[in-house]
Amino acid sequence: MKASIVTIGDEILIGQIVDTNSAFIAKQLDKVGVSVVEMKSISDDKNDILSTLNEYLNNVDVVIVTGGLGPTKDDITKKTFCEFFDDSLIENTEVLTHVKELIEGFYKRPITQINKEQALVPSKAHVLFNKVGTAPGMWLQKENTVYISLPGVPYEMKYLIENEVIPKIVKDYKRPYILHKTILTYGVGESLLAEQIEDWENNLPNFIKLAYLPSPGRVRLRLSARGTNEGVLKNAIDNEVIKLKVLIGDVIVGYDDDEPIEVVLGRMLSEKGLTLATAESCTGGKIAQTIASVSGASSYFKGSVVSYATEVKAKVLNVSQELINKHSVVSAEVAEAMVKSVQDLLKTDIAISTTGNAGPLKGDSDAEIGTVFIGIAIKNNVFVEEFNFGQPREKVVDRAVNKALEMVYKEILKK
Amino acid sequence: MKASIVTIGDEILIGQIVDTNSAFIAKQLDKVGVSVVEMKSISDDKNDILSTLNEYLNNVDVVIVTGGLGPTKDDITKKTFCEFFDDSLIENTEVLTHVKELIEGFYKRPITQINKEQALVPSKAHVLFNKVGTAPGMWLQKENTVYISLPGVPYEMKYLIENEVIPKIVKDYKRPYILHKTILTYGVGESLLAEQIEDWENNLPNFIKLAYLPSPGRVRLRLSARGTNEGVLKNAIDNEVIKLKVLIGDVIVGYDDDEPIEVVLGRMLSEKGLTLATAESCTGGKIAQTIASVSGASSYFKGSVVSYATEVKAKVLNVSQELINKHSVVSAEVAEAMVKSVQDLLKTDIAISTTGNAGPLKGDSDAEIGTVFIGIAIKNNVFVEEFNFGQPREKVVDRAVNKALEMVYKEILKK
Repeated sequence: MKASIVTIGDEILIGQIVDTNSAFIAKQLDKVGVSVVEMKSISDDKNDILSTLNEYLNNVDVVIVTGGLGPTKDDITKKTFCEFFDDSLIENTEVLTHVKELIEGFYKRPITQINKEQALVPSKAHVLFNKVGTAPGMWLQKENTVYISLPGVPYEMKYLIENEVIPKIVKDYKRPYILHKTILTYGVGESLLAEQIEDWENNLPNFIKLAYLPSPGRVRLRLSARGTNEGVLKNAIDNEVIKLKVLIGDVIVGYDDDEPIEVVLGRMLSEKGLTLATAESCTGGKIAQTIASVSGASSYFKGSVVSYATEVKAKVLNVSQELINKHSVVSAEVAEAMVKSVQDLLKTDIAISTTGNAGPLKGDSDAEIGTVFIGIAIKNNVFVEEFNFGQPREKVVDRAVNKALEMVYKEILKK
Repeated sequence: MKASIVTIGDEILIGQIVDTNSAFIAKQLDKVGVSVVEMKSISDDKNDILSTLNEYLNNVDVVIVTGGLGPTKDDITKKTFCEFFDDSLIENTEVLTHVKELIEGFYKRPITQINKEQALVPSKAHVLFNKVGTAPGMWLQKENTVYISLPGVPYEMKYLIENEVIPKIVKDYKRPYILHKTILTYGVGESLLAEQIEDWENNLPNFIKLAYLPSPGRVRLRLSARGTNEGVLKNAIDNEVIKLKVLIGDVIVGYDDDEPIEVVLGRMLSEKGLTLATAESCTGGKIAQTIASVSGASSYFKGSVVSYATEVKAKVLNVSQELINKHSVVSAEVAEAMVKSVQDLLKTDIAISTTGNAGPLKGDSDAEIGTVFIGIAIKNNVFVEEFNFGQPREKVVDRAVNKALEMVYKEILKK
């Protein structure tokens, strides 16, 4: 079963916003065995929308369109749908009642003419009721293709995908199984890795595809199998992973099902009843924020001291000015003092510290741009590693955040 | 002048990664007057790539392709380009030397056969030299369309766009001017705003387009003008903004040129010589991290105490347990105590505090999920506001971060 995803909006074509809707939709479709064959972003122009709708007619089973459903004039999706389906707009009573309740109840004002128009839908549409916003979703069929139109506001789109679209697809269509397995490798570059597993890769069964997903310091290998029997696919993938372990077992650090490291680490800390704190300089609070982004983090994450200015390291973390003068603020000694101090201050089992120079200019230290010292304390075991994460600034910070979380993860795994 | 952007990669079509490259490229093209008419993400499949290249032939002036240029087997862009341009691969000496230096110098190992193959480029290609990675970019022309292929790794792509692609487009093509002006409004919903400015909108000159960009709590109005004379466009837009001010001047809070609030605020703090600190509970360090993401932030950002656990509020921020017991940890009183305490502790002019319940479960307090108290201290002026940012968790945190930065920004503007 094939799908295309279309995003409508000039704000995307001028780069003002990043389209995150398509990735979310693709992931949900993929999980239920629907293959996304193409994603497209087009302008708010009637002719562009019509030609895209026509292009996919009978070529894919489902087209999911987001954007162009808000209350204002620059939203023309609904009118264009009417033209494409040779249909006209009618008022949907249930939607109108909901819009009224939302506007009058929440915003405490009478609804406007424009609000009323949100309750107009093409007469042939199956309405996807949007409990979290005013624009309803629509499900319409032409020949062999279903067209689904959703609002572009991310949380409204997510609500409709999860509660209306996916359940209806699962009910209406027979789909194949798609299984993915991602193998996380560490410390070996993409090209070297590719040479080591070349023979294995050439002998993969034809229903399994391999992709390399490199990012700084690690390469994820993704195996994707597609077929009708889930058990067969699972066995085939497990079998290939066993062969891969023989070849590169020493660089495999884990298997992830698209779970970011902060989720995996969080579950581990929670299970083991361990608590965590951070003392951050060059990462500016991003390690804390990444840890805190996981729901339930309050059971293991105590807090953080972001000591961006050197004086805060001295004042709040009691890192002595003497130590800073002697070794410089970007040094293993300062990272060690910071990590011990925050572990002690916040009374946690584990602590992480960072001090470095993210650039683009040198700050309070002469350290090379990209230099980061990461300190880890796990109970009485304290150690510091030095890295150079290159440039630019955002890459240095992101690599430091990932590396710090990985260091803690690997250290706890050893126990 | 028209362009299309194509992203190649199955990892995008299964939703494993969000395509941020296209937005970056679109923004850079838009700045120099190139209109992006379509963006597309397609699979790593030769036929899909070929049919996309053919589809754009003579329909746009430039096609920018990212992805599919890494060192491994699943990268087939180069071979497909050869087929499309009826060309063959030749070794580029300059690229080979660079790959060797990078691998042998930085990774301290001999180059592999796969690395060597990265120096192969189509013989007709103008090579875009990639100083920050091993995969070169390529610029090739067929009939009236130029095809540019770039690596998918974001910072390599960015380097090539900024240093090679845009300068060459500016040199080779005559382009129209595109001017955007974004008007930031605050506190009025999209539909109500639309009714208030309906007549004005209907009378806009035909070379100016209006778009509504709503996000929780604010609506940005974007005016885009296109033409050959920059002065004329500028005058026309300024003129429309004056008319708009008469209609909705009371809800306009600013004009942004796509600069996020942390950049605008940072510049303001820097100019006025003011310093800032944060004490964060439910935002988990995200305000700190957002402020620190701006280069040069170290001149005004001192640091932060992330007091995720209640005991950290007591211990590090000296918020008395009595106060917490009396008012609950999610309260105006605690937000006020936190903001005063961190301002005092880190000796800053300005401080921000947050305490709230981001959900999905209730934590150390009975406060409704979505409740956030934001405290602001500007010298001796301290105030707290209460919000309910709804659900889900990430929306609560993002809205709290934006709101806190806006509160500081507006407060300083008043002075």
